[in-house]
Amino acid sequence: MRKLIVGVMGGGENASPGDCRSAYRLGKLIAGEGWVLLNGGRPAGIMEWSARGAKENGGLTVGILPGENSDRASGNIDIVIATGMGAGRNYINVLSSDMVVAFPGKAGTVSEIALALKSRKRVILLNFATGSLFDCYRDEGLLQTARTPEEAIQIIKKHFY
Amino acid sequence: MRKLIVGVMGGGENASPGDCRSAYRLGKLIAGEGWVLLNGGRPAGIMEWSARGAKENGGLTVGILPGENSDRASGNIDIVIATGMGAGRNYINVLSSDMVVAFPGKAGTVSEIALALKSRKRVILLNFATGSLFDCYRDEGLLQTARTPEEAIQIIKKHFY
Amino acid sequence: MRKLIVGVMGGGENASPGDCRSAYRLGKLIAGEGWVLLNGGRPAGIMEWSARGAKENGGLTVGILPGENSDRASGNIDIVIATGMGAGRNYINVLSSDMVVAFPGKAGTVSEIALALKSRKRVILLNFATGSLFDCYRDEGLLQTARTPEEAIQIIKKHFY
Amino acid sequence: MRKLIVGVMGGGENASPGDCRSAYRLGKLIAGEGWVLLNGGRPAGIMEWSARGAKENGGLTVGILPGENSDRASGNIDIVIATGMGAGRNYINVLSSDMVVAFPGKAGTVSEIALALKSRKRVILLNFATGSLFDCYRDEGLLQTARTPEEAIQIIKKHFY
Repeated sequence: MRKLIVGVMGGGENASPGDCRSAYRLGKLIAGEGWVLLNGGRPAGIMEWSARGAKENGGLTVGILPGENSDRASGNIDIVIATGMGAGRNYINVLSSDMVVAFPGKAGTVSEIALALKSRKRVILLNFATGSLFDCYRDEGLLQTARTPEEAIQIIKKHFY
Repeated sequence: MRKLIVGVMGGGENASPGDCRSAYRLGKLIAGEGWVLLNGGRPAGIMEWSARGAKENGGLTVGILPGENSDRASGNIDIVIATGMGAGRNYINVLSSDMVVAFPGKAGTVSEIALALKSRKRVILLNFATGSLFDCYRDEGLLQTARTPEEAIQIIKKHFY
Repeated sequence: MRKLIVGVMGGGENASPGDCRSAYRLGKLIAGEGWVLLNGGRPAGIMEWSARGAKENGGLTVGILPGENSDRASGNIDIVIATGMGAGRNYINVLSSDMVVAFPGKAGTVSEIALALKSRKRVILLNFATGSLFDCYRDEGLLQTARTPEEAIQIIKKHFY
Repeated sequence: MRKLIVGVMGGGENASPGDCRSAYRLGKLIAGEGWVLLNGGRPAGIMEWSARGAKENGGLTVGILPGENSDRASGNIDIVIATGMGAGRNYINVLSSDMVVAFPGKAGTVSEIALALKSRKRVILLNFATGSLFDCYRDEGLLQTARTPEEAIQIIKKHFY
C-alpha cells in the first residue's frame, strides 16, 4: 500500500505567524500518521513551516518547485520536483495529493483550491474563508472546513479509513 | 504593433443562456476593435459563444485546448493550440492574454482568474460576483467589474490607449 | 476548414546562415500556400527567419514562447502564446502543428523531433542528418527528408491534399 | 544534505529483456548507495524494472506520471507525481534528476536525453548508441557512456563525491 500524500497549500511570504504555527503543527501531525507531506517546496510561509513540522517528526516531504533548479527548495524538503513551469506547477501540486489542506493565501492558493476541486480532489480549508465562491463543491462534500490541524487530520482519517 | 489579445473565460457546459448571449456580444465587439480573441477552445458555453461572435464579425480566434488533439476544438477557432496538459493549460490561457474578461464559471474559471491575478494580469469580471476573495487585487486596480460587454470594452480601451 | 499549421523547428542563436536563408524561404512558401507558420517564437535563428519570410509574404505566424512575457517574442510573430514552461513548451509546439519541418539544431530541436514522433506527428528533416536514431519512424513513413524548402512543401501538400 | 536523485529513463513496453535485467540491477545499486530513484512511473519496461530493483533493496522511488491519476503508477513507486501533461512530463523527469541514466528507448527516451542535455544535466547512456547526434554534448563532458550498471554508478560517484 502506497503512503497517503497530503498536500498543504497556503501563503508564502505573506502568511501570518498564526497560520505558520498551525502549518507547523499540521506538518507534525501528518508525519505522525505516517503520511507524506507535499507542498510547493519554496522556503517561505506555509510551505516552509509545514515541511519543518513534518521533518522534525520524522516525516517525508515532497516539494513541487515552480523553477528549474532544485537548489531553490526549502532545506526541509526531501524530494524536490523541479518543474520549470512557474505557477503552472500548481496543477501538479493538487493532482499529486490524495487530499489538500489549504491555509489562507492569495491568488496562488486560490488557484490551487480551484484546480483541486475541478479535478475532483477533496479540499479542507483551515482558517480560510473563501466566501460562497465554491459553494457547489461544498454541497457535494468535496470542500470541507477545519478549525484546527487536529480537525483536518480527523477529516482525512474519516475519509481514507 | 502586435494586435491586442483578449482572453475570454467562463463556464463551459454549465454557462447560462444569458451569459452565452453576452459572450457572443463581447466576441463581436472584440473583433470589431481589431483585437484577437483567445479562450479555452472547447465547443461549449462561453468559449463557443465568444468565438462565434468574433468569427461572425470577421475576427481572429485562438483556442488553447486541454487535450492533445486539435480536432476537438470548436469550429469557430482559427488557431488551435493543443497542450495535452488538461486544466494545466489554464495558466497558458491567462499568460497569453493581454487582458482577461471572466464570465461566471465554476472552479476552472476561478482558477483562471486566480492565475491571471497572480501573474499580474488585469481581469474584468462580467456578471461574476466572486465575493471578497480577491479584494487585495481590486484595491490595486488589477481586478475590475463590468456590467455589460460594452463596459468591458471601454475598460480595455482605457487601459491600452 | 481550419488553415493548416506548419511547425518550423531548428537552431536558435547557433543556426547557420545557410539554414536561416532556407528557413526564410520556407516561411515565404508556407505563407504562399495560405498556411499558418508556428515556431518557438524567439527572435533568433530559424525561428526569426522563418517568421520573417512568412510575414513578408502576407502570412500569419504563431510563436510558442518558453517564458511568461509576450514582449520577448520576435516582432515577426502575430500571435504569441506565452507558456512560462521553459523547454517544456516544446511539446506544445509539436502538438499544435499539423506537420513539423525540422532544420538542424541542438538538443532543443532534437527534443521537438522526438516529441513529435512520439505523438505520431509527421516530421520532415530539412538538411538535418539525425543518423539512425529515428529509423523505426522512418520505416513507418512518419519521418521524411527534404533537400529544399520547395521539396518540404511538396511533401506536405502530398499528405494533406 | 538532500539525497541524490538519479533519473532512470528508457523504453516502456518495448524494452528488451536484457535491458530490463540491467535496469533492475541499476535500481538495486542506486538504492544501495542510499540515492533516490526517479522515473516515468508507469508499470512497464525500464520504469517497472528499475523501480523493482530499488524497492527490493530498500530504496525510495519517485514516479512522474503522464496522466492525472496516481492509481496508474507501478506498484513499486513510493511517491507518485501525477502531472496530467502527457509526454510533456518528460521535461520534469529530467529537471528533477541530479543525473540521468538512459537505456535504449524510442522517441520518448530520446526526448528525455535531449531535454536533459538542453537543461545542462549530465546523461549516462547505458547500452544506448545514439550516433553522432549529441556529439557536442559529449565533447563538453555532459554526455557519457557506460557499459554496465556498475560503471554508471562509478560515473555518478566520481561526479558527486
